[in-house]
Amino acid sequence: MKKHELFNNILRKQSFLCVGLDTDIEKIPRHLLREEDPVFSFNKAIIDATQSYCVAYKPNSAFYESLGAKGQIALEKTVAFIRCNYPDQFIIADAKRGDIGNTSEMYARAVFEFSDFDAITVAPYMGEDSVKPFLVYPEKWVILLALTSNKGSADFQLTTDATGERLYEKVLRKSQEWATDDRIMYVVGATHGKMFEDIRKIVPNHFLLVPGVGAQGGDLEEVARCGLNSQCGLLVNSSRQIIYADTTERFAEVAGQEARKLRDEMSKYLLWIPSAK
Amino acid sequence: MKKHELFNNILRKQSFLCVGLDTDIEKIPRHLLREEDPVFSFNKAIIDATQSYCVAYKPNSAFYESLGAKGQIALEKTVAFIRCNYPDQFIIADAKRGDIGNTSEMYARAVFEFSDFDAITVAPYMGEDSVKPFLVYPEKWVILLALTSNKGSADFQLTTDATGERLYEKVLRKSQEWATDDRIMYVVGATHGKMFEDIRKIVPNHFLLVPGVGAQGGDLEEVARCGLNSQCGLLVNSSRQIIYADTTERFAEVAGQEARKLRDEMSKYLLWIPSAK
Repeated sequence: MKKHELFNNILRKQSFLCVGLDTDIEKIPRHLLREEDPVFSFNKAIIDATQSYCVAYKPNSAFYESLGAKGQIALEKTVAFIRCNYPDQFIIADAKRGDIGNTSEMYARAVFEFSDFDAITVAPYMGEDSVKPFLVYPEKWVILLALTSNKGSADFQLTTDATGERLYEKVLRKSQEWATDDRIMYVVGATHGKMFEDIRKIVPNHFLLVPGVGAQGGDLEEVARCGLNSQCGLLVNSSRQIIYADTTERFAEVAGQEARKLRDEMSKYLLWIPSAK
Repeated sequence: MKKHELFNNILRKQSFLCVGLDTDIEKIPRHLLREEDPVFSFNKAIIDATQSYCVAYKPNSAFYESLGAKGQIALEKTVAFIRCNYPDQFIIADAKRGDIGNTSEMYARAVFEFSDFDAITVAPYMGEDSVKPFLVYPEKWVILLALTSNKGSADFQLTTDATGERLYEKVLRKSQEWATDDRIMYVVGATHGKMFEDIRKIVPNHFLLVPGVGAQGGDLEEVARCGLNSQCGLLVNSSRQIIYADTTERFAEVAGQEARKLRDEMSKYLLWIPSAK
């Protein structure tokens, strides 16, 4: 998907919401366990109920891997289901991959050839040649970890070098040599609300994938105020707050309501973009 | 597996070789494609032929993921095959995982509960709470990326902070607060031979997993001279040099010969350890 297509979807749907499919077999409604593939059944219902209010889905590969090959099948079916029924959705493999070149090539093959994701989250620790193999696929995206939403982000990401530059700032700056804002986005945690202003100085035009709103405590209004750019530039993710909002047979309906609430809030913030008025 | 058990295996086998199972369906001998599960058939033959000369196997998850659920099944069968037939082998999931706590928990569940790996490689970028969920399993190990073997390792890992400490040194130092050398190892690329002396000043007692010997150009003797400690402290990985040494029907036999050569070389270096004489 091209950047302007994503922006058009955001304007049309009045939403920059990404729904995180962190589907945990131990947390889904009990009645689904009678289904042949409970994880896929859950995802399908959540997707049908939320798709009007979001522009992206982000399956978290860890949750599928924890079930072995069965989980992998549920994930493959989920991606195919979205692709087939809601082709305007942007599908992110939240996988935090990154390895030497020949290995990153294999990860890229997994998400962009075997599956049909639009993007993959990548960890920057191993540098340029660990990221580049993901960038050779036209219209596919790398979403590089910059400043994450967890407490441990302070351990290394905030380390300041001799010139005063923090590690996550170096990641933002250096990775711009590898591809343009048509091919790279960044993960920036919503728990670092005020830092969005500094981040926007380094990456004014890039899309940022923002986890941490909701269960992790981030503030959507603050993120929007500091993070929006002229092409929106934000995909705000919510997982647990939406998909586990209810654990009865009404789970999908309630998930839809939660997504709708976020969409309604987002539509107000989108008015702040001059081109969106 | 406990550290002293690993060391005992090294002494008994006179080898600190880890065989990397980077099994690429496009590189395995053509005649195997007639088998029901070519990847597993290849691995099984390689393992049978090399197991006398190594103490560890390291399947590289990217290669299995690139085949979807089918690859996942081949990986699961490979781990079960090693565990069942060669229970003294140390099995490493080379996966470079790492995410927020609840997600790393799922990755840990995948490799330590669903599968029965002994260790997983983890990327440190997201800090302590992304690593800790892997450390709650008794006798299981985290192998944390420190200084990797690829060119891009210079992009961020060598960044010096205001106190003169490099990022990989900070990773080595800080992660020692999270667990002892009975639970953490580090990835240190063999292409950085002389830096092993500096690294040993920070982590004198830890095991280091050393990729990069062979296809990536590292020098085994230099690694041994600078890296060995009183309990060996090295697992040197070779993947392509062994598993693709021959692509005819004799592939497994030739792989065994390559592994044996490395074992023979390693047995000389093991004499440098006082306790191993």
